[in-house]
Amino acid sequence: MAEQDALVIFTPSGKRGRVPRGTPVLTAARQLGVDLDSVCGGRGICSKCQVTPGYGEFPKHGVHVAADALSEWNQVEERYDRVRGLAKGRRLGCQARIMGDVVIDVPPESQVHKQVVRKEATARAIVMDPASRLYYVEVAEPDMHEPSGDFERLKAALKEQWQVADVEADLDILRKLQPTLRKGEWKVTVALNKGNHDARARVLEVWPGFFEGRLYGLAIDLGSTTIAAHLCDLRNGQVLASAGVMNPQIRFGEDLMSRVSYAMMNPGGDVEMTRAVRGAINDLAKEIAKDAGIDPQLIVETTFVCNPVMHHLLLGIDPVELGQAPFALAVSESLAFDASELELSAINSDARVYILPCIAGHVGADCAAVALAEEPHKSEDMVLIVDVGTNAEILLGNKDKVLACSSPTGPAFEGAQISSGQRAAPGAIERLQIDPETKAPRFKVIGCDLWSDEAGFAEATAATGITGICGSGIIEAVAEMRAAGIVDPSGLIGSAEQVGSPRLVAEGRTHAYLIHDGAAEGGPRITVTQGDIRAIQLAKSALYAGARLLMDELGIDKVDRVVLAGAFGAHISAKHAMILGMIPDAPLENVISAGNAAGTGARIALCNVAAREEIEAVVGRIHKVETAIEPRFQEHFVNANALPHAVDAFPELGKVVTLPDVSFNSGGDRDRGRRRRRG
Amino acid sequence: MAEQDALVIFTPSGKRGRVPRGTPVLTAARQLGVDLDSVCGGRGICSKCQVTPGYGEFPKHGVHVAADALSEWNQVEERYDRVRGLAKGRRLGCQARIMGDVVIDVPPESQVHKQVVRKEATARAIVMDPASRLYYVEVAEPDMHEPSGDFERLKAALKEQWQVADVEADLDILRKLQPTLRKGEWKVTVALNKGNHDARARVLEVWPGFFEGRLYGLAIDLGSTTIAAHLCDLRNGQVLASAGVMNPQIRFGEDLMSRVSYAMMNPGGDVEMTRAVRGAINDLAKEIAKDAGIDPQLIVETTFVCNPVMHHLLLGIDPVELGQAPFALAVSESLAFDASELELSAINSDARVYILPCIAGHVGADCAAVALAEEPHKSEDMVLIVDVGTNAEILLGNKDKVLACSSPTGPAFEGAQISSGQRAAPGAIERLQIDPETKAPRFKVIGCDLWSDEAGFAEATAATGITGICGSGIIEAVAEMRAAGIVDPSGLIGSAEQVGSPRLVAEGRTHAYLIHDGAAEGGPRITVTQGDIRAIQLAKSALYAGARLLMDELGIDKVDRVVLAGAFGAHISAKHAMILGMIPDAPLENVISAGNAAGTGARIALCNVAAREEIEAVVGRIHKVETAIEPRFQEHFVNANALPHAVDAFPELGKVVTLPDVSFNSGGDRDRGRRRRRG
Repeated sequence: MAEQDALVIFTPSGKRGRVPRGTPVLTAARQLGVDLDSVCGGRGICSKCQVTPGYGEFPKHGVHVAADALSEWNQVEERYDRVRGLAKGRRLGCQARIMGDVVIDVPPESQVHKQVVRKEATARAIVMDPASRLYYVEVAEPDMHEPSGDFERLKAALKEQWQVADVEADLDILRKLQPTLRKGEWKVTVALNKGNHDARARVLEVWPGFFEGRLYGLAIDLGSTTIAAHLCDLRNGQVLASAGVMNPQIRFGEDLMSRVSYAMMNPGGDVEMTRAVRGAINDLAKEIAKDAGIDPQLIVETTFVCNPVMHHLLLGIDPVELGQAPFALAVSESLAFDASELELSAINSDARVYILPCIAGHVGADCAAVALAEEPHKSEDMVLIVDVGTNAEILLGNKDKVLACSSPTGPAFEGAQISSGQRAAPGAIERLQIDPETKAPRFKVIGCDLWSDEAGFAEATAATGITGICGSGIIEAVAEMRAAGIVDPSGLIGSAEQVGSPRLVAEGRTHAYLIHDGAAEGGPRITVTQGDIRAIQLAKSALYAGARLLMDELGIDKVDRVVLAGAFGAHISAKHAMILGMIPDAPLENVISAGNAAGTGARIALCNVAAREEIEAVVGRIHKVETAIEPRFQEHFVNANALPHAVDAFPELGKVVTLPDVSFNSGGDRDRGRRRRRG
Repeated sequence: MAEQDALVIFTPSGKRGRVPRGTPVLTAARQLGVDLDSVCGGRGICSKCQVTPGYGEFPKHGVHVAADALSEWNQVEERYDRVRGLAKGRRLGCQARIMGDVVIDVPPESQVHKQVVRKEATARAIVMDPASRLYYVEVAEPDMHEPSGDFERLKAALKEQWQVADVEADLDILRKLQPTLRKGEWKVTVALNKGNHDARARVLEVWPGFFEGRLYGLAIDLGSTTIAAHLCDLRNGQVLASAGVMNPQIRFGEDLMSRVSYAMMNPGGDVEMTRAVRGAINDLAKEIAKDAGIDPQLIVETTFVCNPVMHHLLLGIDPVELGQAPFALAVSESLAFDASELELSAINSDARVYILPCIAGHVGADCAAVALAEEPHKSEDMVLIVDVGTNAEILLGNKDKVLACSSPTGPAFEGAQISSGQRAAPGAIERLQIDPETKAPRFKVIGCDLWSDEAGFAEATAATGITGICGSGIIEAVAEMRAAGIVDPSGLIGSAEQVGSPRLVAEGRTHAYLIHDGAAEGGPRITVTQGDIRAIQLAKSALYAGARLLMDELGIDKVDRVVLAGAFGAHISAKHAMILGMIPDAPLENVISAGNAAGTGARIALCNVAAREEIEAVVGRIHKVETAIEPRFQEHFVNANALPHAVDAFPELGKVVTLPDVSFNSGGDRDRGRRRRRG
């Protein structure tokens, strides 16, 4: 027997084995555990099982593949090629039969568990293993003599044809099942979800006949300020569209605690905020589906990452307990819902929603998502991950132990509470350099690639104007001011005389640095004031103190690597962050931006169901540190007020930058009592 | 050690064993697997674990119980007795400790799996094992240093204190959990449901502290004509209230097929009918809760039995496929839902709804419920069970095999389509006797215990009047007319001359029998017309033909026992049913009424979760016979037209009644061609 069997070798997996001659390639792949996709179950309809046979000598595999190693094209392949076109060299795995020894390549697009390439620098590969997939089935017709429900016969077909057992369906699926089966003449395509929260598979949707379309998912990063969503193709993980909207809850309070207060002071306030955020998510879903040109009913999965307050407000749980010690979450584990339970009416009502677990009352599912994306728990070196937003979530650790905390940075890093601050939008200054000699700035604004001192800048920015400074701009501005000797280590801005530049203008008893005067064009006068410096100092002190607290907990005083996460983290340069003392000293080349790691975590959880179990397990092992009750936090906070720091050394920073040792304490500064100076 | 251990014997279970002296009775009971209830987990709060210790000699058990065999009353028992009173001889099982050999009786009310006594004749005992129960737990307070959600700590408490794992909760429970835990100072009572459709336990409700109340369930028999509900205490199975309303879908069609037609002819008609029936169920739930004086929010479970069309209309599934061969159900298995999914807003929104499985497109969950109540699958003798309603469901079999079919009897048995027919309501004639000599009738009406020829009848019925004939009344009337020689075997009513009574009045070419002329009191003239006889003949032929078809299938020509089920079955006498030939000949003493067996089945499924699995398994084994496509059905139907039958012998009937061998075929009867006469 074995003599007559043919040897088949699949690449790239390298899996090999012998099968009886005449075995379809798809069948051989299944027998050998090779990852070869199929939606139609081998009926020559879906074309997902395309393979590329190799012919000739394969010394590596020790095999010669004859020209007739596979069966001739059959009618199904010929028809498929005629109607849709089969790329040269390709065969349909379910039709081509193995007639002799053969090497078969499975191209990436034919793999179920295909790997998704991420653009971000600190890429974790996403392996496709979505919870929701399409299954084409042929259902037995009803028989009066053996009565059974149409749904029971559908389940029997799924079990027999796809080995999927324990299938359940909501009422709206049961409602449409009979007409759909009859329209499809007892052939239907079913979207099934098998999440980790439910051993049972759920029918999400059913279409008559073979459904040509795709299933889509939304990965949503629900922030206090903005709600960002990525629309992903659940077959290949491709991001088809991304969109963001302002969180409409801002009208109830800029930051989280003011929203908690709103809920406490206004009966029903939490309900109002829940309605607002759900409405915005629906608008966002509609917009993103329109952008991508897809039917929003094909969005069958959604993952959410968010901080604990947003988590509760999304769920409709009053967040009042999160506003006071001991900051008790109503529920911390990951959660799964039907879209309809969260009133997400813009997408398929049976779509499954997965919400990542929260770590603690101050450390939410967004931080869990960062951990999923950046994997500190797998890191060989000691990594500090800061996700900078209105609150900063901080993770520190390596494969042995991971700590987490949250630190109340406030919104200064996002350009809020800054005199010329604004959200990142065209016209906002996002980059800034100051000549250390002349103290003159040059800058870039969002929407224009030119520096302000380059030819054509005025024309290029005429439409947007120069309207303010965004979060990354203010950080660069303060850092550059410190590096240029305009600001001293205590954070005090020098006067025109002290600095030697007319750009320093008196404002009451303090001074401000003029970046741009738009008066001529009717635009605003953009300055960095002493108040702005103080706001940035408070924010960065909180961030640094949180990181330091975790380092204390681990008994370390340096980290090997720093990952700046958050949409905003992508725009901060390592050097400027370290001049400000936002983060502990580290080799600058080891300070990297991870982009929106929380959003990436949401995408990973969307595309890979096993990743959900992984993060649930990881979150259970993360050790939480509560900054609000740690006396040392206050101490670290005070010491971190100086630029870069009153006590801690920054030797790595010192290798690339020498900060001028200036002091502008003229005795007239009201902040005197709070200032400390380094060395 | 064992020497020092005390012997404890529990009655009535007889379970015995040795436990260390000082062991609380409740602990001993649990160790020995004795069924002793507790809601508070042994904290002396709930008093559900009351026991009655026996003292003195127990020769049967070979034990002497000393006066100090149990510990003295402790403070908890004293306080309980002071506040609520502890019946003489009773102890709290969680407080009394076993100090010496002892016999402990567990009274029925302290047993979890107490047995419920049913009033009905063919009672199947209901053993309490409800899916929903109360659990009192003490939950750990939140700890900032070990952050976890309140819900996770509740789950941990349920696992530790009650060994209930895998608990889940809907959003509305999560919403109220935090304030409830704090109000109860971290002690709460939880209503948990663990149905057979879900391995997971669900939180249905949560109360602060120890909840004194009870949980209730509704068993609903959703008929085409009426909706009947029983409100049950889920602790002891007691029926606290029963109520019924007309099915408001009647306005869309009297019988099922006319409702299916309505759905086919009117787009959205099914939605309209679904809305109507759900509304009526909500009204009924409110009414029944009000009757019983309970909070409808404490109704946490509902079971439904219904025919397939009502099943689909309850679920909101268009029943159109049920109106045409092959009569495919959308779904046939048992189903479980949240009350909110079926818009049952009158009861707890998290209440669990269980719908019994359907057997076939014509044989519904109501028939499954009859099987659950009457257990033909456990019968030693050959039993025929007929559930008489607008359709008759018929079960035939014994422990070896059970068959089922449905037969379209139409509404005549319910008094519809009868000239003087009316629904069973005060004023309706429900019993009737005819003097075989004088041909004069005497009758009883609903709402009065007197016969019409007894003194005081006129006064007693003055308020209601005599308004018509209900279903059981028309059957008695026709049977009595046949027995009195007013109707011949072909169903023809004789003329005044032929019968020898002026009560026979000509109506066109046929005759009618005058029962009561209410003209004097301004009431109706109540007669039985030839058309009425024909309607009853059609109905009873269908019923008999269905039963006969099943007998053919089993290859038998007699049954040992006949059970008449249905609210209506309770009012039919065996003799009258057999004179009409509604049912096959059988010893009259073996023809028994089971009352509303479908409703009883609903109650069993409500009170005993294992019964749900039982009926699901039984339904899978019942062999279905489709009357609509069986050629022999038509033949049986024609033969069954005669009273009692054109072919089949009724020897058992013959032992108690001799039917007059009359014939009124005068040649002028238009029905001549259809008539057949018995030998």
